[in-house]
Amino acid sequence: MAIGIGLIGMGVVGGGVARILRDREREFKDVRGLDLDIRKVAVRDLSKPRAIDLFPDRFTTNPMDVVADPTIQIVVEVMGGVDAAYDLVLAALQNGKDVVTANKALLAERGDSLFEAAVQNNVGLGFEASVCGGIPIIQTLSQGLVANDIQSLYGILNGTTNYILTRMTEAGADFDPMLKEAQDKGFAEADPTMDIDGTDAAQKLALLCRLAFRQRVSSGDILKEGISHITALDIDFARELGYTIKLLGIARVVGNRIEARVHPAFVPHHALLADIRNEFNAVEIVGSAVDAQVFYGKGAGELPTASAVVADLIAIAERRKAGLGPAGAPLAPLPEADLVPIGDIQTGSYCRLTVYDKPGVLAQVAALFAGENISIETVIQHGRSETEGGTVPLIMITHDAPEAAMQRAITRIGNLSAVTEKPQIIRILHP
Amino acid sequence: MAIGIGLIGMGVVGGGVARILRDREREFKDVRGLDLDIRKVAVRDLSKPRAIDLFPDRFTTNPMDVVADPTIQIVVEVMGGVDAAYDLVLAALQNGKDVVTANKALLAERGDSLFEAAVQNNVGLGFEASVCGGIPIIQTLSQGLVANDIQSLYGILNGTTNYILTRMTEAGADFDPMLKEAQDKGFAEADPTMDIDGTDAAQKLALLCRLAFRQRVSSGDILKEGISHITALDIDFARELGYTIKLLGIARVVGNRIEARVHPAFVPHHALLADIRNEFNAVEIVGSAVDAQVFYGKGAGELPTASAVVADLIAIAERRKAGLGPAGAPLAPLPEADLVPIGDIQTGSYCRLTVYDKPGVLAQVAALFAGENISIETVIQHGRSETEGGTVPLIMITHDAPEAAMQRAITRIGNLSAVTEKPQIIRILHP
Repeated sequence: MAIGIGLIGMGVVGGGVARILRDREREFKDVRGLDLDIRKVAVRDLSKPRAIDLFPDRFTTNPMDVVADPTIQIVVEVMGGVDAAYDLVLAALQNGKDVVTANKALLAERGDSLFEAAVQNNVGLGFEASVCGGIPIIQTLSQGLVANDIQSLYGILNGTTNYILTRMTEAGADFDPMLKEAQDKGFAEADPTMDIDGTDAAQKLALLCRLAFRQRVSSGDILKEGISHITALDIDFARELGYTIKLLGIARVVGNRIEARVHPAFVPHHALLADIRNEFNAVEIVGSAVDAQVFYGKGAGELPTASAVVADLIAIAERRKAGLGPAGAPLAPLPEADLVPIGDIQTGSYCRLTVYDKPGVLAQVAALFAGENISIETVIQHGRSETEGGTVPLIMITHDAPEAAMQRAITRIGNLSAVTEKPQIIRILHP
Repeated sequence: MAIGIGLIGMGVVGGGVARILRDREREFKDVRGLDLDIRKVAVRDLSKPRAIDLFPDRFTTNPMDVVADPTIQIVVEVMGGVDAAYDLVLAALQNGKDVVTANKALLAERGDSLFEAAVQNNVGLGFEASVCGGIPIIQTLSQGLVANDIQSLYGILNGTTNYILTRMTEAGADFDPMLKEAQDKGFAEADPTMDIDGTDAAQKLALLCRLAFRQRVSSGDILKEGISHITALDIDFARELGYTIKLLGIARVVGNRIEARVHPAFVPHHALLADIRNEFNAVEIVGSAVDAQVFYGKGAGELPTASAVVADLIAIAERRKAGLGPAGAPLAPLPEADLVPIGDIQTGSYCRLTVYDKPGVLAQVAALFAGENISIETVIQHGRSETEGGTVPLIMITHDAPEAAMQRAITRIGNLSAVTEKPQIIRILHP
């Protein structure tokens, strides 16, 4: 018997899903015994030309038609946005339909109630496509690594920022021109705010925490810093010190708490994450049994994202066919995570100061660090100013220190009359 | 209701499985509603002390006790070997039990009939642990990438050889001392033949082909070459040319055929696979929707392997609990793969010749390559011999050429009076 599929949204990802289902229809039928039938597709504008010429009679402009259709068992939500998508996904779950979504913002902001609705209605809520596109990271965490306590997780979760940082590194360029290039090449949106300020990565990290630690982490509670302040000079110093700068999402178990943070980080050259270039994503997971594993691939794009949607769809359809509810560990209710307070998070830091080239400055700066009990690992002072009374960069690498102490020290250092620019701080990933 | 588990074998991996099941018993019960009970354990010697002190009254020396026990629903085969394991696994499947195995040699040699018995008896045959230890590569191919035609697959599938090649590269050492070091450190067996001659990697590649292409590939039909002939000199030249030498398992779709081969290869420095060090494994998969993905982790060891066994066990137990047979696409019967004949496989090659340092030698060698229509991309001739009539290395990089033509040319080149040693050939991985 055919399983009815409803699509809400027929943009880039929705078009990819429809195309894959059409191209692999025969294989899914012959090899897996699955007969999948796209019965309704909700779009905003019926007159818009579609990349794929499928079932024109099944389009509707009312997404509630999809959610209410009794012949549809699985709803694929690829419309994006939060509020309208929430109402539709919730209604679908309450109507006893399984849902597959690629909508990470929706799950980050309203996931608690949606996961709970899925459990209450004994239906599946697949979201492989919402994190790292086609990389099967959700499946890996929820099934492949079930024998492990997850100890830590380090991810390059945002392709736009990784593209920009890679190009800055390889072209020796500053942020603005490389953002422009990323936009021209389609790797950054017209409004790239959510990507470059770390919000997108924080939302993905919150979802990964739910699976890895079985606790609820709100993306708003995650220490978050974007990449727009990174300069070509920082990238040069990083290289000289043996590091590559990457925007990382990090979640770790520290004692009985979870530490979660998104920020640019100095990643040692020898680490695999340092080699992840351009728009690619990668996640390193450290588990109690498997030790470190890394998963690498394209984190966005029509077909990689559609690949993940279809993987969820097939897994759910196989269970539907067998007359079963969802598999695996339910994702609600979960306890709220006991997060390490942001001020207590410990990291080493690279500090780049712009200072007047005169005696005594290093002593003043060192005293302010010492006042917060922050010890210095390395100091680099290159060359001299070419003009009398000019400025030079002063680089200091600190040992691990709490975020709050670091912020206090840096505020005071920034106020020194010998320091002419806002101090630049980039955290260091210890291997 | 509890699900009965039987273990055949309680060595390194079996001990790891028992330990993980004990340590996570509560979690599997609370979170997934699974009550797993190890009801019998078959061992060779009852008096041998066990790393873990579990249920001493449940040990037996007769593995048929496990396979015949009606209270056991899932049998875990971790005894190793082929013939005895085959009889036991087959009997378990025929008795309606699901089986989880870490035994790649068993599946490579007798997999056809075991996969068929699993299908006929409507039971599961899990083998995640048989390839790349704890990396969920079987799950990824059979579920995560179900929306993709797999186009190619490149794997560092054997930890022993990768450890030896890494140490040769980093210490500038030859093969023999680094094999010895690997044995001392527990990364190579006392008899390492199956690892260093490529047999182990070919068996794993054959299994991956079954999943990736849904065709049967016999590991004996795979072009296979080991690493014992690789020298420190080759590694130096590789580095100079921008490559790292890795033992790769490669399977690709070429036209309507499958090309499958295991051999040392020049891997470009910028490729992620070039960065996989020591005993780690990695697999790069190129799929029609996701493009390139890489999966990296520990390919062997007690806990990584046990992690994969337990992942299979949990997936099967969840279906058992729901009263269901195995999931996914059945792995038998499958058509036999139409393999590219070994002589037709096309690769570029690095050729290192040891030749007398006199005029005319290059012309002779070049003529023999030309006679087989093999064109030369690069020639490197370093320095001169220090003694009159001495020898020098002559390095030539060829463009792609069929294996058979290359072998003919090299045989003739090796017979030249100016060539004093057996020519060294290492194939090149094109990015």
